[in-house]
Amino acid sequence: MNIIEIIEKKKNGFELTDKEINFFIGGCTTGKIANYQISALLMAICINGMTNTEIFSMTKHMASSGICLKWSGIDGIIADKHSSGGVGDKTTPIVVSVVTACGVKMVKMSGKGLGFTGGTIDKLSAITNFRTDYNTDEINNIVNNIGAYMGGQTHDLAPADKKLYCIRDVTGTVNSIPLIASSIMSKKIASGANILVLDVKAGGGAFMKNANEAQKLAELMVNIGNAAGIKTCAVVTDMSEPLGCAVGNALEIKEIIDILKGKSKDKRLYNICVILSAYILILSKKAADFDDAYHIAEKALKSGQAFRQFYNIVQAQGGDVRLLEDISLFPRAKFIGEIISEKNGYVQNIDCESIGKISLLSGAGRIRAEDVIDYSSGVVLHKKCGDSVLKGEVIAEYHTNRMECVDEIKSGIAGAYHIGKEKPENIPLVYKTIMK
Amino acid sequence: MNIIEIIEKKKNGFELTDKEINFFIGGCTTGKIANYQISALLMAICINGMTNTEIFSMTKHMASSGICLKWSGIDGIIADKHSSGGVGDKTTPIVVSVVTACGVKMVKMSGKGLGFTGGTIDKLSAITNFRTDYNTDEINNIVNNIGAYMGGQTHDLAPADKKLYCIRDVTGTVNSIPLIASSIMSKKIASGANILVLDVKAGGGAFMKNANEAQKLAELMVNIGNAAGIKTCAVVTDMSEPLGCAVGNALEIKEIIDILKGKSKDKRLYNICVILSAYILILSKKAADFDDAYHIAEKALKSGQAFRQFYNIVQAQGGDVRLLEDISLFPRAKFIGEIISEKNGYVQNIDCESIGKISLLSGAGRIRAEDVIDYSSGVVLHKKCGDSVLKGEVIAEYHTNRMECVDEIKSGIAGAYHIGKEKPENIPLVYKTIMK
Repeated sequence: MNIIEIIEKKKNGFELTDKEINFFIGGCTTGKIANYQISALLMAICINGMTNTEIFSMTKHMASSGICLKWSGIDGIIADKHSSGGVGDKTTPIVVSVVTACGVKMVKMSGKGLGFTGGTIDKLSAITNFRTDYNTDEINNIVNNIGAYMGGQTHDLAPADKKLYCIRDVTGTVNSIPLIASSIMSKKIASGANILVLDVKAGGGAFMKNANEAQKLAELMVNIGNAAGIKTCAVVTDMSEPLGCAVGNALEIKEIIDILKGKSKDKRLYNICVILSAYILILSKKAADFDDAYHIAEKALKSGQAFRQFYNIVQAQGGDVRLLEDISLFPRAKFIGEIISEKNGYVQNIDCESIGKISLLSGAGRIRAEDVIDYSSGVVLHKKCGDSVLKGEVIAEYHTNRMECVDEIKSGIAGAYHIGKEKPENIPLVYKTIMK
Repeated sequence: MNIIEIIEKKKNGFELTDKEINFFIGGCTTGKIANYQISALLMAICINGMTNTEIFSMTKHMASSGICLKWSGIDGIIADKHSSGGVGDKTTPIVVSVVTACGVKMVKMSGKGLGFTGGTIDKLSAITNFRTDYNTDEINNIVNNIGAYMGGQTHDLAPADKKLYCIRDVTGTVNSIPLIASSIMSKKIASGANILVLDVKAGGGAFMKNANEAQKLAELMVNIGNAAGIKTCAVVTDMSEPLGCAVGNALEIKEIIDILKGKSKDKRLYNICVILSAYILILSKKAADFDDAYHIAEKALKSGQAFRQFYNIVQAQGGDVRLLEDISLFPRAKFIGEIISEKNGYVQNIDCESIGKISLLSGAGRIRAEDVIDYSSGVVLHKKCGDSVLKGEVIAEYHTNRMECVDEIKSGIAGAYHIGKEKPENIPLVYKTIMK
C-alpha cells in the first residue's frame, strides 16, 4: 500500500477502504507518513468529504492507535458526557453530581482550556488541593466508593488524533465535520464508557456557528458512537451568549455551588444541566421517559442530593471542602469593578468570543499551553440576553490581578454587550435532540 | 498576512489575490512556509482549481523567485520550444537546426531525463565531448556566432517551482492543470525567450492521457505566455506510440542525423518537426502563413541546410563532428538482438510506457538522479502502428550491455506490441493548434 495512491484516491473523490484508512492512521502514529502527506490527505478529506463507512473506520483506527481504557474494576455501566466547548460552560461538574447522585456511575475525563474557551480541569483546580491526576486503579476505587470521578486523561488517548490535530491546526483543515467528529469520538471510544451524552454547541461562542452544521456534527457523532457500541445521544444547544453568569475558574465554581444549592440565577444554565442529566438517566435506564428523567434530575438538585454528591467528589479527590460551605474562602482578585450601561434598553446579544478573550486577558486562561492560570480572575455577567437595562445600571463586573489590563477589560466587556430598544426574541436553548 | 487564512480561503473555493499568491510563493522560496502547509494549499488548488488571474499571478511569482535570464547580448528575438515529454521525443535538435538555419535565433535549455521519458541533454551528450554547461556569456557568444544553443539550465531557474514540484511529487498533487501549466511556464518565462512554441503530448506515453485534457493545458499555457509578453502558440500532438523509431540516446541521435540528411523512416516524426518549426517561423515573422512556413522548414531539411546547421552547433559546443559523418563511430552495445513477430497482422498499438521502461532497463535512462547513463543502449522499433507484420518478421531490436536483462527486455518489447488482424484506423498526428 502506498500513501500517494491513497491521497490521489481521495483527491479524485473515491471512498477509501478500511485497510487504506488503517494504513494512513498507522503511518500517522508511527511517523512513517510525512506531515506534508498527512496534510494533503486531510485537505482532500475537508473538500471531498468522507462517507459514514470511512468515518467509522477512521474513528475506530484513531481510537485504537493508543491505549483503550477498560473500567472492568468498576461494577456496572459507566456514563460519559462531552460538550463541544464554549464560553462559561460549567455543565460537567453539575451534571456529574446530579447523575451520580441518582445512581449512575460516571468517569469524566476532561481537557485543559486553551484559547478563549475554558477547560473543566482548570475550573475544578480552582478548588484548593482538588486532584485531577489519579491513575486508573485509584479512579476505579474512587468510582466504586462514590460513583463518580472527574479528572484529566490518565493516558495519552488516541495519539493518532493528537498528531492529526496538530497538523490540522496549522494547515487550515480544522473545519471539517468528518474530521471533527472522528477526533472527538476517537477519544470518547478510547475512554471506555458505555453511555455517552453529547452537548453540541451552536452559535457565536461555539465552533459551529450555525445550528444546522451543529446538527450534522451531532448526528454523525451519534452514529459513530452507536456503531462503536456506545449508547450515544446528542443535544444541540445554543451558545450565542455565554452559558450562565460567570466566566473564569473560581467564579464558575461559585456559580456551580449556587446551582447545586438551588440558588441558580441563570435559568438557561440550570435547564441545560437538567436536560443533559435527564438524557444520561434515560440511556442508563434510570428513567422511563424524558419527563420522568427530567423530574428525577431536578429532584436531585432541589433535594440537595446533588450538592452532597459534589461535596463527596471534592472530598474523595482531595479538595478543600470548606470552600463549598463558605465561598468567601475562594481567592479574590485585587481589582474588581463594574461595567455600567450607558443607555436604557434590552440586551440584544453578548458576544461570546469577546467575553472569552476578556476572561483570558484578565488572567483566567491560557494563550500558550505553558501559561499559568489565575483562578480568581474572570468576568461576571449581571445582565444576559433579553434582560432590560437602565442607564447607569451594572451590566457586568470584572475580576483581575492585572492592573495594566483593567482599561482594556472594561472597554472589552462594554463592547461585547449590544443593547437595543426592542426586547429581542427568545433564542431557543435546545435546537435539536438526536437519539436513535 | 497569514498562510492558514490563505489555505482556508482556497479550501472554501475563493479566489486568492496577487498579494496572497506572492506571499505563498515567497514563503515557499524562503522556507518560511512549512511543507505541510504548502501541500495542504496545493491539494486545495488541485481540487478547487484556480482562475486564470490566479494562475498568471502564481506563474509570474514563481518565475521571479530566482534569476530571470535576459539575452541582451544577443541581437534580435530569441525563440524557445517546449515539449511536454514522451518516449522517443527527439524533436528539439531537429527543430533547433531547421529554425536557426532559417535565421531565427534559439536558446534552448532542456532538462535531464528521469524515469521512462528521456531528456534532450542526455541525447546530445551521446555525441562525444558535446558540452551543455556553458555560462551565460558563452551562450551569448555562441548564439551570436551561429544563431543557436542547446544546453542545460545555466542557473537554478524558478526555485519556487522546484520546491513545489518536490512536494507535489510525494503528495498526490502532480495532476492539476493549473499547477502543471504554471510550473512549465514559470521556467519558460525565467528563460528569457521572446517566442515560444509548445508541443503538448496526448496519449498513453504522455502525462496527459487524453487530447481534451492536453488541449486545456495547452490553451492555459498559451494564455500564460501571452499574458507574460511571450508570443506563444501550442500544438497538441499524439503520443500514443513512441515518436520515431529509436528510443535511447545514441540511437536517437542517429535517427536525428538520418532525418536531417533526408533519410527519415518515420513520417510522423518528420512531420511533427516540420510543423513545430513552421510555427516558430510564423511567430518570428519569417513566414506569412502556415503553408509558407511549412515550405520554408521543409526546404531547410531537404537542402541540407538544417544538417549543416546541426553540424555547426555540435562543433560550436565542442562535440566530435566525425560522428555526424560516420554514425558507425557511435558507441555500440554488446548485446543487440531482434524481436520477431509470432503472428501475421497489423500493429494496433505500441505501449509507450512499456517501451520507455524497457529502454530504462537496457541502461538508457535514470531511475534515480545519480544514475549513470549508457548512451549505446535502447530500443529500435522496426514496425510502428498501422504497419503490416508477417509471422517471423523483425518488429524491433534491443541494444544493451546488461546481459542479465536481455530476457526481460525481449519479453518486455514483445509485450508492448499489440498485433491484430484488422488494419487499425490512423491516429491523428496533431489534435489541435492553439494560436491567439
